[in-house]
Amino acid sequence: MAFSPLVDELVESLRCLPGVGQKTAQRMAFHLLERGRSGGSRLASALDQAMSGVRRCDCCQNFSDTEICQICENPERQTGTLCVVESPSDLLAIEQAGDYKAGYFVLMGHLSPIDGVGPEEIGIERLLKRVHEEGIAELILATNPTVEGEATAHYIADRLDGRNILITRLAHGIPVGGELGYVDGFTLTHAFRGRKPLSE
Amino acid sequence: MAFSPLVDELVESLRCLPGVGQKTAQRMAFHLLERGRSGGSRLASALDQAMSGVRRCDCCQNFSDTEICQICENPERQTGTLCVVESPSDLLAIEQAGDYKAGYFVLMGHLSPIDGVGPEEIGIERLLKRVHEEGIAELILATNPTVEGEATAHYIADRLDGRNILITRLAHGIPVGGELGYVDGFTLTHAFRGRKPLSE
Repeated sequence: MAFSPLVDELVESLRCLPGVGQKTAQRMAFHLLERGRSGGSRLASALDQAMSGVRRCDCCQNFSDTEICQICENPERQTGTLCVVESPSDLLAIEQAGDYKAGYFVLMGHLSPIDGVGPEEIGIERLLKRVHEEGIAELILATNPTVEGEATAHYIADRLDGRNILITRLAHGIPVGGELGYVDGFTLTHAFRGRKPLSE
Repeated sequence: MAFSPLVDELVESLRCLPGVGQKTAQRMAFHLLERGRSGGSRLASALDQAMSGVRRCDCCQNFSDTEICQICENPERQTGTLCVVESPSDLLAIEQAGDYKAGYFVLMGHLSPIDGVGPEEIGIERLLKRVHEEGIAELILATNPTVEGEATAHYIADRLDGRNILITRLAHGIPVGGELGYVDGFTLTHAFRGRKPLSE
């Protein structure tokens, strides 16, 4: 490389970001050096603080600065319902939709025995303990509609079998604004089976 | 936003990177927090050091940790020839090609009167001074083949008019490995005009 050690190290370090290869890292480094030094310094300090300061919420396992996260701590959130998601970005999508007002449990993954991820690794015991202690009436299993997500949902449902808890799964169907012609067969089958009277 | 202040600030800061919007910034932040904390800390310190430590080489204007950059300082580089490029990434591309062994001058831009970028802003006076003082015999104008790049090249050539200096421009033609059917008309015209005997 023709550059200075500092620039080389910056390019190399940027490659830790997902989807960033050599060329993109170079472009980012030059952009920051040419036109974004203040943004770069701000990013440096934000990274530094987040990498050392962000932990997992003791209650829902989501990322948090404090022992208990803002959602778990919020007294205005409804109790009695819990929504189980795989990742913080799933939680964020639900929060941005804005309709759901109760608590969460973030698995930070899904069951995947081949990768050594069992119930212990994604905190299912902690979830079951919480369901029991908080007297949860409805558990919404909002894991992804993938093989692993479905397996995780079924595992959790099996573990709660026999208890008087309503266990639900998000509805499948045609996305709002989607075009029928582009919807796959499985989704369409689900949409047909889940059809509702127009008056509802 | 549903997240902690530290995560929010990290997502917001990541948006200073070129081509990174809200969703990508979120994905990057979660990736670093979940699986790349050591990489994130390394990036923080690399950014911090580069933003404060990288300056411009006093000789060629390229990014450098020191007053004079590694290329300008290298006694093994040929003298008498100078290659003028618009940006550090252009220089890097030429260095990686590996054939050119003399010095550079990095304009860090091109003439663009509409944006207030004149000869002074891109260091043309400094370039002319260097050409004079170092007794440059050939000046390769490797600015981009765009309107602004061509204008910048012609401006530099005009300023050196009458002096006994060979001024050259990189050849236009079909990219090596390219297919004729996909080459645009201008490039093809240049390739025809610049055709050479097979024996060369």
